[in-house]
Amino acid sequence: MTTETEDPDHKENKKTRHSIGAKKNPDTETAILDAAADIIAEKGIGGLRMEAVARKAKAGKATLYRWWPSRGALLLAVYQRKKPSVCYRDTGSLYEDFLHFAKDLIEIWQGENGLFFKAIIAESQSDPDVAEKLKDYHAERLEALAAVVTRSQQRGEIPQNEDPTTRAELVIGLLWQRLLNNRLDESIDEHIKMLANSDET
Amino acid sequence: MTTETEDPDHKENKKTRHSIGAKKNPDTETAILDAAADIIAEKGIGGLRMEAVARKAKAGKATLYRWWPSRGALLLAVYQRKKPSVCYRDTGSLYEDFLHFAKDLIEIWQGENGLFFKAIIAESQSDPDVAEKLKDYHAERLEALAAVVTRSQQRGEIPQNEDPTTRAELVIGLLWQRLLNNRLDESIDEHIKMLANSDET
Repeated sequence: MTTETEDPDHKENKKTRHSIGAKKNPDTETAILDAAADIIAEKGIGGLRMEAVARKAKAGKATLYRWWPSRGALLLAVYQRKKPSVCYRDTGSLYEDFLHFAKDLIEIWQGENGLFFKAIIAESQSDPDVAEKLKDYHAERLEALAAVVTRSQQRGEIPQNEDPTTRAELVIGLLWQRLLNNRLDESIDEHIKMLANSDET
Repeated sequence: MTTETEDPDHKENKKTRHSIGAKKNPDTETAILDAAADIIAEKGIGGLRMEAVARKAKAGKATLYRWWPSRGALLLAVYQRKKPSVCYRDTGSLYEDFLHFAKDLIEIWQGENGLFFKAIIAESQSDPDVAEKLKDYHAERLEALAAVVTRSQQRGEIPQNEDPTTRAELVIGLLWQRLLNNRLDESIDEHIKMLANSDET
C-alpha cells in the first residue's frame, strides 16, 4: 500500500502564524510574497530589500517584519511557496521511499527552483540571517525524512538502535552536493540502495 | 600498520604544468599566488580580478593566464596552497580511514580555510568558470577518497562489486552539508560507521 503524507511546510507555516498570535491577512500575504518574488526575479536574491518589498506590496513595514522577521525568513518563504511540495511516501520499503523522495527533489531542482535554492545557499555563506533560516529549514526537512527512516525501523528493515536522522542526513547531503556541483543528472541509485540497506536491483 | 599517502594536489599541479609544456618559475608562481591571496583577504573572493593580480605580482598577464587560465583556476590554486594537506591513511580499517579523513578535513575547515571554501562554493553558484573548476577539484578529491574504499574492497571489508566512489561521495556530501550549514562541530561518528559498514564502538 502506498500512502502519501503532505509536505509539512504548510503545517509549519500555520504553526508559526499561531505562535506569533496574529493571523495573516491572505491578500496581504500574497501581495508580499508576490512582490518579493518579482524583486528576486528582477534583481536576484542579493537585490532583495525589505523596504522595497513593503513598498511594492503596499504593505506596512511593521506587518512585513511581524510575519517575516528578516530577509532570510522571507527568502525561504518565497522558495517554499514557489517550489512544488515533496511527498513523503510510505511504500513499505525504505529503498522505494528514499528513491521517490530523491527523484522528486531532483526533478524540482532541475528547473528554476534549483537555481533559487543554490542562490539561497550561496547567500547564506555571507549573510548570517539567511544562514540561520536555512539551517532551520534544513533541520525541518531532515526531521521529515527521518520520519521515513523511523517507519523503516518499525518494520524491522534496519537496526532500531540507530538515530533515524543519520541516514536521512546522508541522503540530503548527497543531494545538496549534486545540486551545488551541477550533477543532478547523474545516477543516485547505488547511493540510495546503500543507504536503505537494500539488495534490490 | 599505518601508512600515509601524500595529498595528490601537488602531483596534479605538476601534471598540469607538464601538459602545457612550460615550467613555472617558482618565484613568479609565489608572487602570483601571494598577490591573489592578498587581494582575496582584502576584498573577498568576489573582488579577485586577474588584471589586479598580474599588476600586484608584477607578472605578465600572458604568464598568469598560461598557468591559471581563469579566475576559478586561480581561486582553487590559492585555496589548495593555503590549506594543509589531508592525508589519506591506510590503517587496515575503512572506518578508521574514513574517520581520520573526515576529522582532518573538519579541523581544516573549522578555521579560515572553511570560510574560504564556503566562499568558493557560493561564488561557483553564480560564476560558471568557478563552478567548472570546483567540479574538477571535487572530482579529484572524490577519486582520492575512492582509492581508500578500493583498498577496503581488496581487504574484503565491503562488497567488491560496488562502485568505490559511491561511499566516498556520501562521506564528502555529508561534510559539505555540515560545512555549509555551520554544523562542523556536530558528531559524524554514526554516519562514518554506517558508511564503513562497521560495528566498531
